[in-house]
Amino acid sequence: MTESAKRITLAARPNGEPKPSDFKIESYAVPTPKDGEVLLRTIWLSLDPYMRGRMSDGPSYAQPVPIGGVMEGGTVSEVIASHNPGFKVGDVVLSHAGWQTHAVSDGKGLRKIDPSAGPVSTAIGVLGMPGMTAYTGLLDIGKPQPGETVVVAAASGAVGSAVGQIAKIKGARAVGIAGGKAKCDYVKNELGFDECLDHRDPDLAAKLKEACPKGIDVYFENVGGHVFEAVFPRLNAFARIPVCGLIAGYNATEAEVPKWAGSMMRAVLTKRLTFRGFIVSDFAARHGDFLRDMSQWLREGKLKHREFVTEGLDSAPAAFMGLLKGANFGKQLVRVGPDKA
Amino acid sequence: MTESAKRITLAARPNGEPKPSDFKIESYAVPTPKDGEVLLRTIWLSLDPYMRGRMSDGPSYAQPVPIGGVMEGGTVSEVIASHNPGFKVGDVVLSHAGWQTHAVSDGKGLRKIDPSAGPVSTAIGVLGMPGMTAYTGLLDIGKPQPGETVVVAAASGAVGSAVGQIAKIKGARAVGIAGGKAKCDYVKNELGFDECLDHRDPDLAAKLKEACPKGIDVYFENVGGHVFEAVFPRLNAFARIPVCGLIAGYNATEAEVPKWAGSMMRAVLTKRLTFRGFIVSDFAARHGDFLRDMSQWLREGKLKHREFVTEGLDSAPAAFMGLLKGANFGKQLVRVGPDKA
Repeated sequence: MTESAKRITLAARPNGEPKPSDFKIESYAVPTPKDGEVLLRTIWLSLDPYMRGRMSDGPSYAQPVPIGGVMEGGTVSEVIASHNPGFKVGDVVLSHAGWQTHAVSDGKGLRKIDPSAGPVSTAIGVLGMPGMTAYTGLLDIGKPQPGETVVVAAASGAVGSAVGQIAKIKGARAVGIAGGKAKCDYVKNELGFDECLDHRDPDLAAKLKEACPKGIDVYFENVGGHVFEAVFPRLNAFARIPVCGLIAGYNATEAEVPKWAGSMMRAVLTKRLTFRGFIVSDFAARHGDFLRDMSQWLREGKLKHREFVTEGLDSAPAAFMGLLKGANFGKQLVRVGPDKA
Repeated sequence: MTESAKRITLAARPNGEPKPSDFKIESYAVPTPKDGEVLLRTIWLSLDPYMRGRMSDGPSYAQPVPIGGVMEGGTVSEVIASHNPGFKVGDVVLSHAGWQTHAVSDGKGLRKIDPSAGPVSTAIGVLGMPGMTAYTGLLDIGKPQPGETVVVAAASGAVGSAVGQIAKIKGARAVGIAGGKAKCDYVKNELGFDECLDHRDPDLAAKLKEACPKGIDVYFENVGGHVFEAVFPRLNAFARIPVCGLIAGYNATEAEVPKWAGSMMRAVLTKRLTFRGFIVSDFAARHGDFLRDMSQWLREGKLKHREFVTEGLDSAPAAFMGLLKGANFGKQLVRVGPDKA
């Protein structure tokens, strides 16, 4: 095959917000799978906030993408050639092929997706990493009890939207925070949160107090920044704070010392708070429970989700830069190729 | 009875360090128990850092002592008159009679102590609240695994000394931090910690790094302040930080924003740390396990403890002010009366 493939590599480590020149679009020859390998064609690429971390070389839970390396990312891909007995041409798989149109794989880490079970894009969305981040962080760390109040930011996004809906399914009160009226209306009216506040509202702290008359028992932390400033004084005794992301700070060039920092440990003590950081792979053992519950809730209409799609691999850098600023409305996906070649 | 009793009340809320004039020594008539009540004579009074919190009226997990009220505290007391069928004269009980020589009780919350099982003072020490704080915080939150490294400050004190010894019993490496050479020698040579560092050492951060070559998996937080500054960068992925006290800050008049604060949440995320505040009553269900294990370890000589005794109720204010500055060497007790009247 000498067909041309396309990939996006990391050209430079961003200083603050990523800019177009930090990415490079390259052509390459479609690779040929060796014995035991398969050739994958990307259908969907997932864009997620964690990727900002991979662009920097600071200490983190994962290695950074090297300069010149293909940007990392989860994909839904189709097997278009196979020298691996475990896969046949036409299989649709969940992969970690990254920001590129084609990739070879030895089959390790691939998981087959059943296209008859629903749209395959859900495998990188509500039934994939973002959904499982919501499910495990909320249920295994947040542990919301009936009648308790759960607050989550980025509430129209892939993780936040699932957090609030699962909280409602478990009998808790769900208060979302999102950017702008359209997103807030969607969160409240479509997703069924009890309330949704605009994080740009200068009265956020006062409105949050009003929306949480019994305080906050679980704050699912995926943004950081000024939202947590508003949340912190409202935390109840024994509140749980699962921490899976701090998107508001990902583009920061220096660590800003937040206002609550001076009283943080004292509050941990006097309110007996639990802060716990996690990433989804920490709860790998829960994958079966996650798929069973979330699939059922989707079928029953208790769990809704929304996708925000940009077209073509070339759109990925701009879409990703937008994601970090909340320009997406729903799970950010890139349509890299058609469902069927 | 018109015998005179003595009590120490809160005269004023301290601003910063408590001073002698914040306490008042008062005489009162020994009270007469009514039907259903017992009269208690205090043998031992426990002095503990949490009492500093009760002297202030800021938000906390417990109500403050009112101005003019008797200072709170756990005691070992003898029943010297009883109109309650559950208790007879001569019974020795664990009580919360406070800083006074005599008190009446309706029997609720009293627990009989068997004087034949060992010195009764252990009921407010290694077999009491401080011991259980160490046991539950370390085992239920810290969860040290064999080969992991546990760090605890105030390591010669009532809580810290138990934390390190229990860590050793569980197969972990125990590194203590204490004030001065004498305490450090005791912690290392008598209590069997692997290492003990002086918190006044200007090279504390470097020495801690050396003492914890594989990083820190559990930091049992009972002091706060500059010790945590040294600990913070050494925390391993998945480290657990039970928080039961912040004695270094109890006398602070304003919340100081610590150096690590700006990167705290980022570390929670990238290292998947768990911070959890607790007080001993949160683990009341573990009291049976605690008594069984700790009594056995004491009998087997695996658990040592040291008492630091001042004589007479009048000594309590000065002893308490000293405790907040680390002047004690071991569990701080006040001998209020003889074992047998």
